Amino acid sequence: MTSVNKCKAVTIGNVSIGGPNFVVIAGPCSIESEDILREIAGGIRGFGASILRGGIFKLRTSPDSFQGVGSDGLFVAKKIREELKMPIVCEITDPRQIGDMHDIVDAFQVGSRNMYNYSLLKELGTLKKPVMLKRGFSALIEEWVMAAQYITKGGNDNVILCERGIRSFDRVTRNTLDLASVAHIKQNYSYPVIVDPSHATGIRELVAPMSMAAAAAGADGLLIEVHPKPDQALSDGFQTLDFDQFSTLMNQLGPLLNHLKRPLWS
Amino acid sequence: MTSVNKCKAVTIGNVSIGGPNFVVIAGPCSIESEDILREIAGGIRGFGASILRGGIFKLRTSPDSFQGVGSDGLFVAKKIREELKMPIVCEITDPRQIGDMHDIVDAFQVGSRNMYNYSLLKELGTLKKPVMLKRGFSALIEEWVMAAQYITKGGNDNVILCERGIRSFDRVTRNTLDLASVAHIKQNYSYPVIVDPSHATGIRELVAPMSMAAAAAGADGLLIEVHPKPDQALSDGFQTLDFDQFSTLMNQLGPLLNHLKRPLWS
Amino acid sequence: MTSVNKCKAVTIGNVSIGGPNFVVIAGPCSIESEDILREIAGGIRGFGASILRGGIFKLRTSPDSFQGVGSDGLFVAKKIREELKMPIVCEITDPRQIGDMHDIVDAFQVGSRNMYNYSLLKELGTLKKPVMLKRGFSALIEEWVMAAQYITKGGNDNVILCERGIRSFDRVTRNTLDLASVAHIKQNYSYPVIVDPSHATGIRELVAPMSMAAAAAGADGLLIEVHPKPDQALSDGFQTLDFDQFSTLMNQLGPLLNHLKRPLWS
Amino acid sequence: MTSVNKCKAVTIGNVSIGGPNFVVIAGPCSIESEDILREIAGGIRGFGASILRGGIFKLRTSPDSFQGVGSDGLFVAKKIREELKMPIVCEITDPRQIGDMHDIVDAFQVGSRNMYNYSLLKELGTLKKPVMLKRGFSALIEEWVMAAQYITKGGNDNVILCERGIRSFDRVTRNTLDLASVAHIKQNYSYPVIVDPSHATGIRELVAPMSMAAAAAGADGLLIEVHPKPDQALSDGFQTLDFDQFSTLMNQLGPLLNHLKRPLWS
Repeated sequence: MTSVNKCKAVTIGNVSIGGPNFVVIAGPCSIESEDILREIAGGIRGFGASILRGGIFKLRTSPDSFQGVGSDGLFVAKKIREELKMPIVCEITDPRQIGDMHDIVDAFQVGSRNMYNYSLLKELGTLKKPVMLKRGFSALIEEWVMAAQYITKGGNDNVILCERGIRSFDRVTRNTLDLASVAHIKQNYSYPVIVDPSHATGIRELVAPMSMAAAAAGADGLLIEVHPKPDQALSDGFQTLDFDQFSTLMNQLGPLLNHLKRPLWS
Repeated sequence: MTSVNKCKAVTIGNVSIGGPNFVVIAGPCSIESEDILREIAGGIRGFGASILRGGIFKLRTSPDSFQGVGSDGLFVAKKIREELKMPIVCEITDPRQIGDMHDIVDAFQVGSRNMYNYSLLKELGTLKKPVMLKRGFSALIEEWVMAAQYITKGGNDNVILCERGIRSFDRVTRNTLDLASVAHIKQNYSYPVIVDPSHATGIRELVAPMSMAAAAAGADGLLIEVHPKPDQALSDGFQTLDFDQFSTLMNQLGPLLNHLKRPLWS
Repeated sequence: MTSVNKCKAVTIGNVSIGGPNFVVIAGPCSIESEDILREIAGGIRGFGASILRGGIFKLRTSPDSFQGVGSDGLFVAKKIREELKMPIVCEITDPRQIGDMHDIVDAFQVGSRNMYNYSLLKELGTLKKPVMLKRGFSALIEEWVMAAQYITKGGNDNVILCERGIRSFDRVTRNTLDLASVAHIKQNYSYPVIVDPSHATGIRELVAPMSMAAAAAGADGLLIEVHPKPDQALSDGFQTLDFDQFSTLMNQLGPLLNHLKRPLWS
Repeated sequence: MTSVNKCKAVTIGNVSIGGPNFVVIAGPCSIESEDILREIAGGIRGFGASILRGGIFKLRTSPDSFQGVGSDGLFVAKKIREELKMPIVCEITDPRQIGDMHDIVDAFQVGSRNMYNYSLLKELGTLKKPVMLKRGFSALIEEWVMAAQYITKGGNDNVILCERGIRSFDRVTRNTLDLASVAHIKQNYSYPVIVDPSHATGIRELVAPMSMAAAAAGADGLLIEVHPKPDQALSDGFQTLDFDQFSTLMNQLGPLLNHLKRPLWS
């Protein structure tokens, strides 16, 4: 299905994305406290995730919404990453955050709202740190690939693409997950591609079936929001899995990946 | 993944859709000649399809495009159906075609362009013949379900929904396959749902990965365009599989369906 | 602005659309009773409308919504049309309604949901009665023009196009009014084009500014929903003007049309 | 039509936007040389524009496309602005450009791709310099207004909104101009709103009818691309007017604005 041979794998920490194994990145939408992040990191690793995600600087539609814990989150991220020896991916929203973040995160995430922020992309292109580039929610596939080229043109080949749903007229799901874009990129480009079913659907119950579908469509991994108590999460709780739900998902996904000969990274 | 227990299976010919087995419907975009339809029907059955599809009255954007073979196609459809004892699904585009089609087809297909043709839907609701209702390419999920209710309200409960891609801004694929809509309907309604990856993508190479993804997302079946010589097909050849491609797809799909405990109908 | 010279005017009753004068068609979403239709027809004519509109067979998303008064409406339409000597446009939703409607209505309206109902369009192409063809709410301009060609190819050149908003991601307005499509068609085709700001916006307060904008963009006329008591209308009251609002609009529009040298038909 | 009374006017140089006069901002997509900018600035002022626009740092989809003249452009902008005593608006794409640009430009333009760049918006909120905030091409009206609040919340009330078309499925025009959004904002918020018909349509011939429509819909001004030789412009020539076309437009627009009692600023 997947033209795995064309893919150039990218390594985050010690984890290779786009190679023979499928990778699950999980964690909270926003980093809250050290205790909660430790609980989440330990939890998701136990179920098979190999990379931790967590937002420090949040991009929110309203200036009055919670904007992330900011630089305190960096300290928390650093501590848990070292304690659990688990690589971490955090979103960067401004080129001036590079200095503070560079030695703490294992990969930079560029969010959907910043896919067209070419100043940021150019700056990340001058580094060697991997970049996980989310598709703009209304970006043509061609624009998404060209955004990746803003990074690679600067000399940083470590780009992972992340499909997270596109904006459409429908109102049931938060976005419309475009899995054909994943298969198309796997067939025509060398970037690893992962899928974020949490943002793509915005509905907790749809995360599992879309994770299974993403694996079957040939994606290289998943990015999933998990929190021990989603209803108390500081952002996006409605689309976040609790440990039981994440465990159920991983118990379905593991055998599917074995069947597809794309076993989970461990 | 799929809440199979809520689904009310619908039987086309002797084939049950929405029950414990996964069903593949295949055939040409347009019925051409008796010889070609016989070749296709025999071919697809050999690879595991159990229902034949084929267009008689085509809906084309331009009045100058090929409009289908019309009533001659009915004779061809009848002959091959009886000869091979294989159920057939054909699209209906006008309530006045019911008389001629009723005793020949095993199910009526209502195409994407006619999802809002409530006159047609009401008429089909007075029959018992199954109706495969494609989603309008810009229909809200709610509108699609309500269109199905135009049929069931009349007393015909035999409705199968078919997701065939929605219109979005992207230009790589012909439409954007919305697999989350399939999972959503499986979780919330009792209609069987199948997926048409041929129209959804409009790209031959994407039919296989999207078929695998549809199965993993919990769909009850597939609708796939197959022709021995796609480049000579009278319509939609660019998205049509030849026998080799269909065989390769079925060889991947069968084991996946066994893994998912949703074996192919046979 | 408008290339009026390329336009082939179409006559409804005694009113020419696409010629030197701008035409306002107005009336209720649904025909209710004889008394209410008489009140509306008299009212709108007094403010400058020259053609009456009114739905008899309604297309509603849910089969449980009000479906129009049906054939009783034909009698009401006939009576008021003759009494006030005012041409009337009614929507047709099924080719089998032609017989009953033909001698009563002055033009057939094909609604947005039926733009792709090529069976209906072909049938209307065999008549001489004018057809007002609304744009499908997700139709490419090219598809809309080709739908018109399904009518003209049959020999009926009397086609008027009506832009009524397209479906987009935004949620403030019911649809997104695409006035550039109006200017594009005026520059490149010979069909008269009118605008329906009521359905395009779905917000009563936006009908007046969009009517002004449509006139300035070069449209040949407007289709506006008016009812003496919009909140009691059987459908779409939220986007319907009352007499005061319609009067205010016409008082702004008339001088603008004079300024644009495209005076209101009277 | 327009609720002018609710609008809080914003002053760029000596020109008030959102007050009793309509304002035309014009200029090249990209600043090229001093001679060309002088020619354009003098030309457009002669026809009635009162503010000059010109891109220095360009955002282009491909990293291989022309990226603007960069800091040389600042020198050119400064020189022409002082020489002609004409206010100038330039796009800012990175918060680190503020230092260089602040004393040269009369207003910052935030482009469609940066509407969600909240780091940039927050920074601009700490200044007093006016900001012209273009709508993201897939931004909900609510998201656009909240993006403006990222600026005003910081203390900078000088925000002008600019509608420049949204991304839709249609392919004739580059974007779909959403004039109802302009009327909606004028009725519900106090921001001045201008319209960019050049980017909204991407078609030179549609700039004039959409300018007229924008004025009639109640917009406070226009942003138009003009170049003496559009076919030689370094970017976006296909949607750029030459002097003759701009002159023709202004000759139609002026009398319309007088009719609307919203005369052109002069």
